[in-house]
Amino acid sequence: MNQDYIIPANWSIIEEGFEHDLVKSSESLFSIGNGAMGQRANFEEQYSGKTFQGSYIAGVYYPDKTKVGWWKNGYPEYFAKVLNAPNWIGITIEINGESLDLAKCASVKNFRRELNMKEGIYYRSFEATLQNGTEVAINVKRFLSLDMDELGVILYEVKPLNQNAEIVFKPYIDAGITNEDTNWDDKFWAILDVQNQGNSSFTVSKTLKTNFTACTFMHNTILIDGQNINSNPSQTEKATAKIESSYEVSASKGQTVAIQKFGGYTVSTNHDENKLVEAAQKVIAKANDLGDATLTENQITAWAKIWEMSDITIDGDVKAQQGIRFNIFQLNQTYLGKDSRLNIGPKGFTGEKYGGSTYWDTEAYCIPFYMATKDQNVARNLLTYRYNQLDKAIENAEKLGFKNGAALYPMVTMNGEECHNEWEITFEEIHRNGAIAFAIFNYYRFTGDYSYIPEKGLEVLIGIARFWHQRATYSTYRNQYVILGVTGPNEYENNVNNNFYTNYIAKWCIDYTVEQIQKIEKEYNSDYTRVLHKVKLSIAEINQWKEVASNMYFPFSEEHGVYLQQDGFLDKELIKVDDLDKSQRPINQKWSWDRILRSPYIKQADTLQGFYFFEDHFSKEQLEKHFEFYEPFTVHESSLSPCVHSIQAAVLGRMEQAYTFYLRTSRLDLDDYNKEVHEGLHITSMAGTWMSIVEGFGGMRVKNNQLHFEPKIPAQWDGYSFKINFRNQILKVSVSPNQTNFSLEGDKEIKVFVNGKEIVVEPNTMVTV
Amino acid sequence: MNQDYIIPANWSIIEEGFEHDLVKSSESLFSIGNGAMGQRANFEEQYSGKTFQGSYIAGVYYPDKTKVGWWKNGYPEYFAKVLNAPNWIGITIEINGESLDLAKCASVKNFRRELNMKEGIYYRSFEATLQNGTEVAINVKRFLSLDMDELGVILYEVKPLNQNAEIVFKPYIDAGITNEDTNWDDKFWAILDVQNQGNSSFTVSKTLKTNFTACTFMHNTILIDGQNINSNPSQTEKATAKIESSYEVSASKGQTVAIQKFGGYTVSTNHDENKLVEAAQKVIAKANDLGDATLTENQITAWAKIWEMSDITIDGDVKAQQGIRFNIFQLNQTYLGKDSRLNIGPKGFTGEKYGGSTYWDTEAYCIPFYMATKDQNVARNLLTYRYNQLDKAIENAEKLGFKNGAALYPMVTMNGEECHNEWEITFEEIHRNGAIAFAIFNYYRFTGDYSYIPEKGLEVLIGIARFWHQRATYSTYRNQYVILGVTGPNEYENNVNNNFYTNYIAKWCIDYTVEQIQKIEKEYNSDYTRVLHKVKLSIAEINQWKEVASNMYFPFSEEHGVYLQQDGFLDKELIKVDDLDKSQRPINQKWSWDRILRSPYIKQADTLQGFYFFEDHFSKEQLEKHFEFYEPFTVHESSLSPCVHSIQAAVLGRMEQAYTFYLRTSRLDLDDYNKEVHEGLHITSMAGTWMSIVEGFGGMRVKNNQLHFEPKIPAQWDGYSFKINFRNQILKVSVSPNQTNFSLEGDKEIKVFVNGKEIVVEPNTMVTV
Repeated sequence: MNQDYIIPANWSIIEEGFEHDLVKSSESLFSIGNGAMGQRANFEEQYSGKTFQGSYIAGVYYPDKTKVGWWKNGYPEYFAKVLNAPNWIGITIEINGESLDLAKCASVKNFRRELNMKEGIYYRSFEATLQNGTEVAINVKRFLSLDMDELGVILYEVKPLNQNAEIVFKPYIDAGITNEDTNWDDKFWAILDVQNQGNSSFTVSKTLKTNFTACTFMHNTILIDGQNINSNPSQTEKATAKIESSYEVSASKGQTVAIQKFGGYTVSTNHDENKLVEAAQKVIAKANDLGDATLTENQITAWAKIWEMSDITIDGDVKAQQGIRFNIFQLNQTYLGKDSRLNIGPKGFTGEKYGGSTYWDTEAYCIPFYMATKDQNVARNLLTYRYNQLDKAIENAEKLGFKNGAALYPMVTMNGEECHNEWEITFEEIHRNGAIAFAIFNYYRFTGDYSYIPEKGLEVLIGIARFWHQRATYSTYRNQYVILGVTGPNEYENNVNNNFYTNYIAKWCIDYTVEQIQKIEKEYNSDYTRVLHKVKLSIAEINQWKEVASNMYFPFSEEHGVYLQQDGFLDKELIKVDDLDKSQRPINQKWSWDRILRSPYIKQADTLQGFYFFEDHFSKEQLEKHFEFYEPFTVHESSLSPCVHSIQAAVLGRMEQAYTFYLRTSRLDLDDYNKEVHEGLHITSMAGTWMSIVEGFGGMRVKNNQLHFEPKIPAQWDGYSFKINFRNQILKVSVSPNQTNFSLEGDKEIKVFVNGKEIVVEPNTMVTV
Repeated sequence: MNQDYIIPANWSIIEEGFEHDLVKSSESLFSIGNGAMGQRANFEEQYSGKTFQGSYIAGVYYPDKTKVGWWKNGYPEYFAKVLNAPNWIGITIEINGESLDLAKCASVKNFRRELNMKEGIYYRSFEATLQNGTEVAINVKRFLSLDMDELGVILYEVKPLNQNAEIVFKPYIDAGITNEDTNWDDKFWAILDVQNQGNSSFTVSKTLKTNFTACTFMHNTILIDGQNINSNPSQTEKATAKIESSYEVSASKGQTVAIQKFGGYTVSTNHDENKLVEAAQKVIAKANDLGDATLTENQITAWAKIWEMSDITIDGDVKAQQGIRFNIFQLNQTYLGKDSRLNIGPKGFTGEKYGGSTYWDTEAYCIPFYMATKDQNVARNLLTYRYNQLDKAIENAEKLGFKNGAALYPMVTMNGEECHNEWEITFEEIHRNGAIAFAIFNYYRFTGDYSYIPEKGLEVLIGIARFWHQRATYSTYRNQYVILGVTGPNEYENNVNNNFYTNYIAKWCIDYTVEQIQKIEKEYNSDYTRVLHKVKLSIAEINQWKEVASNMYFPFSEEHGVYLQQDGFLDKELIKVDDLDKSQRPINQKWSWDRILRSPYIKQADTLQGFYFFEDHFSKEQLEKHFEFYEPFTVHESSLSPCVHSIQAAVLGRMEQAYTFYLRTSRLDLDDYNKEVHEGLHITSMAGTWMSIVEGFGGMRVKNNQLHFEPKIPAQWDGYSFKINFRNQILKVSVSPNQTNFSLEGDKEIKVFVNGKEIVVEPNTMVTV
């Protein structure tokens, strides 16, 4: 744990007291989003201290020219970057002629932030004494509307405490923003128009190269004692990139004056690019019609609906409760599954790092959460995202010398093109292809919706199977197929031969694809004909695949009774993490890369990732052996590591370890385990936190179209509960130390297995086991 | 072979006819240098076609800020770049008001370049018809003086052919030059002063950060019909970075007018930085005293002296003869061994690529040439260069986590600091450390001068032995020491385990160091005490080294009877190079990096490099087996590859193959095998060409302080000869198909072994075998 200033609370993230050094951390932790846009918790008023400004629009990216030291054939020309979008939250506040700035006040008292996750509203309040002696109390409310996802709402209240005050509100839009993460300090936005209409202002800007056009708007209302005074700006200043209105208000001592600011974006991805200002006017008109009270009420209702389905309760452990809700809240802020053009960036709307692009995280970690807590269309949209990018994945494979429709999905992407440019990752971390196939399997396993496969999934599976078939090579020496030169999920190994996880998922992909082809031939024959014709797949080729899959080599140690992470793993100096000097950790900050590579240390589950995906292919004894062998070498320096280990520790009944991993995954950002929260949050690993409760402690699995549970509970908890949307039946599971309760919404019974024993849950009748 | 326009000639490089597209290639091939400075064969007059301007000063470099895509711990902050220095050769030639420019002339006839290697003089001549109709004949002579190594001389003659002409010579110095190879387009030079004194001009500029100060000078004389007319410039224009004088001359049709331009650099590395202009004035005064005729004569004499010792003759094969002389000439232009601060950049003074820095090429390839053709102090200076950088090598190792005086010499360096920044090379291509130790061994073996080792070499050896001891790790699994995560000489493999060459040289370094310690303890006890005290070396530590060296693991295939290049080599698809489609070559331009890495293809001798260094550790049968196993997978895409293979093919009696490799190495640049001659020449591999004749065909070895030969001759040759300076005895070896002649300079006999049989060569008496 690297920090401990967030106040534990069941439903809120709370900070009390103002610390300059924590501003960037809190800007990340108090981020808000509504799936369509999001923003870091930057202050509305001026702030001259250290800050990382960020406002982001879903799906709007920039293809930044690649920067490399040494070019390698096959590197992509461009790296898609998440774009810092125009700032619409800014309000300069002048009080008796002095600009309010928390870095410059004479004193600040009772500073408090609260991100109320139940409501989806971010509150901030403080009392400040300015250099000019004026004391003011400030109260700010801000949210991004779930119902109207182009709208954000700010209510900014100022109350002079010790004297009357002349207050000038200067709300503005600043389109002259830049990215912190740029390769060449290029400009990403061109500004097309800046205009004012009374209390409303608009800037229209367009991304260079990608030509996304966005209208950023604001609409301001001045309130005295809560009443709209129908004031117009005393003046509006337009600059090339900025537009600012001024509202002058006199406030008596003790009187509250406020500005309500509506703002947000209308974007060419959803509107005619020539009618973005009109679209923004409509948003403003509707927001004005509804008014702050109704908008706020709707926001709380919309979040209540999300929580109704996705909440996990934990009794007797506030930090654990806060952690899981924070994770669920952030996942929902990032992605709501309405739009198959969108995906889940590793940092969501909370920072620029990782380019905001799509990683294998989505398929490997996020899909289970969305499948179980939303309509199954949401997961289907995530699969469709990859289906729509299949042509690009084929092109990507061609660049690396593959042919005949072999598909290699990119490591990092915005539009299907590869964005990454380290050869050891870009060209070699090919296991990602397996996760994309696995997600198709997992989607069907969970939802029972097979239709996706003949319609779309089969083409993806064939492209992936072709890739593995071509990528494996025959070793005369072993008389088996090998996969040389890869990076597994454990990125602390590069260019290794026969990574167990990669070889295993490669074989599985081929086997699974062949099974689906056979099933579709029988059951969806017109799809079979259509697809095989489209991709020109012959039986002869399928037989070649089978030859590879059935003769795949897996490195195994007889001595240890474990599959080896890769060839040569046993050559390493097998010193356990616990025996490492603490000063050497985290090794990715302390050691040079070669030293990391030749060490046995594992960044995140690798062989164990295979045991997680294919749990039922192995016995519990095998899992135990592998967990005992690999976990002691695992440094968990990836956010994606603790969750899988928490699940497996729970399976193995190692509840203390499972609990420790759970805390680490659920409070990774709140407690800043990885010393980087100021850069943004780890969104995709948050879905892993959900898994560690539902699949880990709850022991939920789907086998043969039925739900199974093996409930366990950490000693620290009095109880916990979660809900699962299983094929449109909503099952609630509540676990306490002595029993598990099941209850069901709807009108149809469901059979579930608890510790292998079948029970029947009738609607609206609690079953206790 | 990629080009074939250089006219074969025994002593010259000749180009006839003007081809715009070959200008950059010829600029490389006709480069001149004198060890202290050098320059590409850029035209003196204006040229608006494609050109790569380059003038370089030995030892003057710039620490350019590193550019990487993804930073790794341990990367150096700076990458030393060879610096393009101010241009002093430029002379704008106006003829009847039109500037002479070969890209713009109405026609060009009889264009000819000749680099006369015997004389060390570069000639260029052509006839041009200008757009204004004037026909002129141009003759240019240029050389960089060996005797006065701060001086260059140009004689530029113009003869109007069809009419009288008003000719304006505008000689200039342009200090406003830039590098083609910059990471961030930074400026490298600051200009301090620009001044004129009659016919002399001076600019003083200083490199940013490194603070090398250089005075670039010129002194101009106008000649009519060969007579100095004592003219002064009609005007001199000074700009911030450029100074240019104008001389107007009238030439009758058929009359030759000329400008003689002296130019060059005086540098703060050799002079008080405040007295550089004075130093330049002295150079000019001396050059004027001597005059062009004497300077030219001295140049020819100085080169004759070099050739006297280093020439290799080949009879009956002009291309082969031209090739070897070109190689010997370029090596001598690059490095003359007078200055232990200097070293041999891979491109010498012919381009910017590879940063002009020092690589393991020096120790592995260049030292034998300099040892056998120069005073042994030259090789000693090259060793001292590394001794002087030992502290930096220890710092470099510390950055990577090593301690206690372990030294890792950099992959690329100017001042001892690492410059390279690809983890797979910088951190992992550690075998370079072995070559530095091997050079110490090799120096003693050849020269018999042991004194270097107790004085300096031992400290270097101990630093290197410590590195290997710490870098090897114990494999419980193998019960042996292993070296994980390296890149061998074959850079088409990265991060491999147990590269045979690396493990072998690591063991050898330790063994050799231990032997030297023991010898020095006995024979140089005060050095022993001094050094061991200085480096704090204990017997216990030496015993730990021995433990590693005596239990080193070497991968071996029983099936093939060969050491494996690395663990897992046999897992590859072993398709021979000959069976690769030609369209796939060179693979480094056609394939993505991952594909290269998982292929069996070898860039340059790797296991065979070990067999080259340690030939006497293995039987000829073993060499044959390894050559037969590895050569068919070798693509020779490094300039350093063909020479070693030529030597080994000769040893094995495969003379056709040896000859093919010889042509490839000796004419690598002349025939542009690697399609990159426009970037500059491959200087370090040229020493390998020398080895392929002397060690390959001549079979020269030193064993037990005696010279051995096993002369062979390619079928294409009538004869060849070379000289060896062996411990201050100059032995000439002349080989013809039927016999070998030995003759000796000096007054002392020498015993040599020919095909194992001892013969005695008396001074000045030819012995025929």
